[in-house]
Amino acid sequence: MASTTDATGGLFELSEDHKARLEELVVGSGVAAKAVELRHFLHAHPELGFAEHVTGAKLVEVLTEAGVPAEAITDMAQTCKVVDIVGTGPAAADGPRCVALRTDLDGLPMEEAASAEELPYRSTHDGVMHACGHDGHMASLMAAALVLLDESNGLRARIPSNYTVRLLLQAAEERPGGALPMVEFGCMEGVDEVYGFHNWPSGPVGTMQVIEGPTMGHVSELDCRIFGSGGHGSQPHAAVDAIHVACKIVDGLHSIVSRNVKYSDTAVISVCSIHAGTAYNVLPPHCDIKATIRDLDPEVFALLTKRIHEVVHNTAAAYGARAELEIRSLYPAVVNHAEQTQIVRSLGQSLLGADAVSSDGLPMLAAEDFSYFLEARPGCFFFLGGAPDNGDPVMCHNDGYDFNDGIIPIAAKMYLALIRASLRLPSLLD
Amino acid sequence: MASTTDATGGLFELSEDHKARLEELVVGSGVAAKAVELRHFLHAHPELGFAEHVTGAKLVEVLTEAGVPAEAITDMAQTCKVVDIVGTGPAAADGPRCVALRTDLDGLPMEEAASAEELPYRSTHDGVMHACGHDGHMASLMAAALVLLDESNGLRARIPSNYTVRLLLQAAEERPGGALPMVEFGCMEGVDEVYGFHNWPSGPVGTMQVIEGPTMGHVSELDCRIFGSGGHGSQPHAAVDAIHVACKIVDGLHSIVSRNVKYSDTAVISVCSIHAGTAYNVLPPHCDIKATIRDLDPEVFALLTKRIHEVVHNTAAAYGARAELEIRSLYPAVVNHAEQTQIVRSLGQSLLGADAVSSDGLPMLAAEDFSYFLEARPGCFFFLGGAPDNGDPVMCHNDGYDFNDGIIPIAAKMYLALIRASLRLPSLLD
Repeated sequence: MASTTDATGGLFELSEDHKARLEELVVGSGVAAKAVELRHFLHAHPELGFAEHVTGAKLVEVLTEAGVPAEAITDMAQTCKVVDIVGTGPAAADGPRCVALRTDLDGLPMEEAASAEELPYRSTHDGVMHACGHDGHMASLMAAALVLLDESNGLRARIPSNYTVRLLLQAAEERPGGALPMVEFGCMEGVDEVYGFHNWPSGPVGTMQVIEGPTMGHVSELDCRIFGSGGHGSQPHAAVDAIHVACKIVDGLHSIVSRNVKYSDTAVISVCSIHAGTAYNVLPPHCDIKATIRDLDPEVFALLTKRIHEVVHNTAAAYGARAELEIRSLYPAVVNHAEQTQIVRSLGQSLLGADAVSSDGLPMLAAEDFSYFLEARPGCFFFLGGAPDNGDPVMCHNDGYDFNDGIIPIAAKMYLALIRASLRLPSLLD
Repeated sequence: MASTTDATGGLFELSEDHKARLEELVVGSGVAAKAVELRHFLHAHPELGFAEHVTGAKLVEVLTEAGVPAEAITDMAQTCKVVDIVGTGPAAADGPRCVALRTDLDGLPMEEAASAEELPYRSTHDGVMHACGHDGHMASLMAAALVLLDESNGLRARIPSNYTVRLLLQAAEERPGGALPMVEFGCMEGVDEVYGFHNWPSGPVGTMQVIEGPTMGHVSELDCRIFGSGGHGSQPHAAVDAIHVACKIVDGLHSIVSRNVKYSDTAVISVCSIHAGTAYNVLPPHCDIKATIRDLDPEVFALLTKRIHEVVHNTAAAYGARAELEIRSLYPAVVNHAEQTQIVRSLGQSLLGADAVSSDGLPMLAAEDFSYFLEARPGCFFFLGGAPDNGDPVMCHNDGYDFNDGIIPIAAKMYLALIRASLRLPSLLD
């Protein structure tokens, strides 16, 4: 696919000069190397959602040292922060404008597999690990910010004083979710467009995955307790066997996608936990199941919930049992806006080559609360390849995962190119 | 049903004089009251299987005080004991003869529901409880022994010196089972017949349940681990869903009795435990199930095990999963011998009335390791009604259960009548 042109003076393309300038700004300046160091510090100090205290303080320290005044940093939603970097150029007549760039902050409750010998910046926090690359997302955004904040390169002076680059430092992406409370606090007020990215552990460094429309799943959780009546295992006739009923229900739930959802729609129901009983010979009084539900379309979700209720309650009734069922809708689907997706795709093709950008593997059904930002404002969430330089890919949430630092300069360049495009500043990188 | 006559001088019947004599020996003598006191002591000091140290010492104390010499008591199989009470009459030409009477000793790992205010002899051992009435079984057997040992009543002098009443004090009936190691130690050597009883919590005091042939179930345990391959709940296509396969297997296992076992045969398969997974969104790598299997016939058991293997392994294979399966055959079925059952039934009808003896509810599929004694020698295991005098029955293994002391004199009389019948001593109760 060739890169597209646009009607805004080449804002959505990068010339060879632009790319050379980005290389100088991000890599030649030493910012990328500094960001890699920062990434390793953050990796060694992972913190769980809404407990990112060391993390937040470190980012504030880096930004403050680079010249961000205290009043430009707003704490909100527990450990979330918004940092506004305004231009130092003359105010523009068509302002204000604001582009928001987001990083997530939190680690996962996992023990890192690597030893300190194998990974010098291994987690120093027992049972917590940056296994999803949020350390790298932070370092990438900080790299772009440090370039912007470095007055010696003249970039910021090309940004009007009524234009803002807003950094969204979002806690607790892994749950319970910092994006929604940030939006509720008002972080999207004045924002014109919002962008963010996630590393893609199975694609080589230098590739991008992006798609318009639904790109990541709407996720819901299901809790169900099936109440039978317990009894001795030798006397099933005198009991209502909750395990028997639960297994019928699991089978029924797993039939919904293949029997009720149209083949062209996307949905997943997975029962991931089932627990009942302790002894060999005591029929337990109830059986608990947990499931995850994914979809990309509210109408499909409505169908799923309707069918789940029918399957659970009617199956229970068929065996004289009773069920309590709760379905909790969590993060909505990440739905990329058309125009902003086109900007990301076009810039990605300019920066990485036309063949390096694809929609392979998308939409995916993993969840992201970046969706709340996209519900509030136009924007795009994209992926940057980050497979290990040697060896097989290690997926996110695996205890052997580590962010590939090769992503950092690419992401920083993409952010700078997006600032240029989103703020309509064709000469930003001249 | 009328009581039957026999060709052995009325040995299997009790006259009104016999019954009056039994009443005097057991109740009038004060033995029953003493046995009730003993029962309450034992109830307050329950001990788990193969840990019946206080229990065993108490029984030895009672027997020793009543005149049993130390050499008549043989320790075996950890906390099991055999106590031989031999006659003091002249040796009989047709001797030796020996009748064995068995009590179990152990409590259950349960916390008694009643408070010390509600039940003065409530368990004083945290988390252990006589919830199956073994305290009452012991007291009943001790009552019969105390009558035998009381030289003032002249009973023992009517027993030839080469005739033995053997008390089997068996530990760990609730598992892992003391009967088999006792038999292996040699406790049945020289024994002609063996008898024992269990309380029957749903029948009124003064009733008896007994049946010839299979009376309690052969019990087996099943452990099965289904190995899929784990993954993210949103990516079931990339996993092998162990929970899905396990539920298919549970359903298949529960079809065996209705689809493969003949309607006239008796069998139960109950999956009583299923465990897999912890999170909502992580497909676990395996799922564990436990089941109990009951039957009354080795041929039926062979069919069950064949079908279980077929269902488990073929179902797993159908979904690309793999299963590890273990079936452990535990206590065999309790199979009452014809002649000894007829003796018990006949004596029960004499003692309690013809209408008080039935086979209602038998065979049952609960398990008992009395089966090992019956595999070694002819005998009969019977039930004596022990429902609460007021209120609804409380089943064994319920934390609100208590043995009904009204059983004790009835059981003691039955034991004495069985000694008379089994040792062929028609004048024992004259």
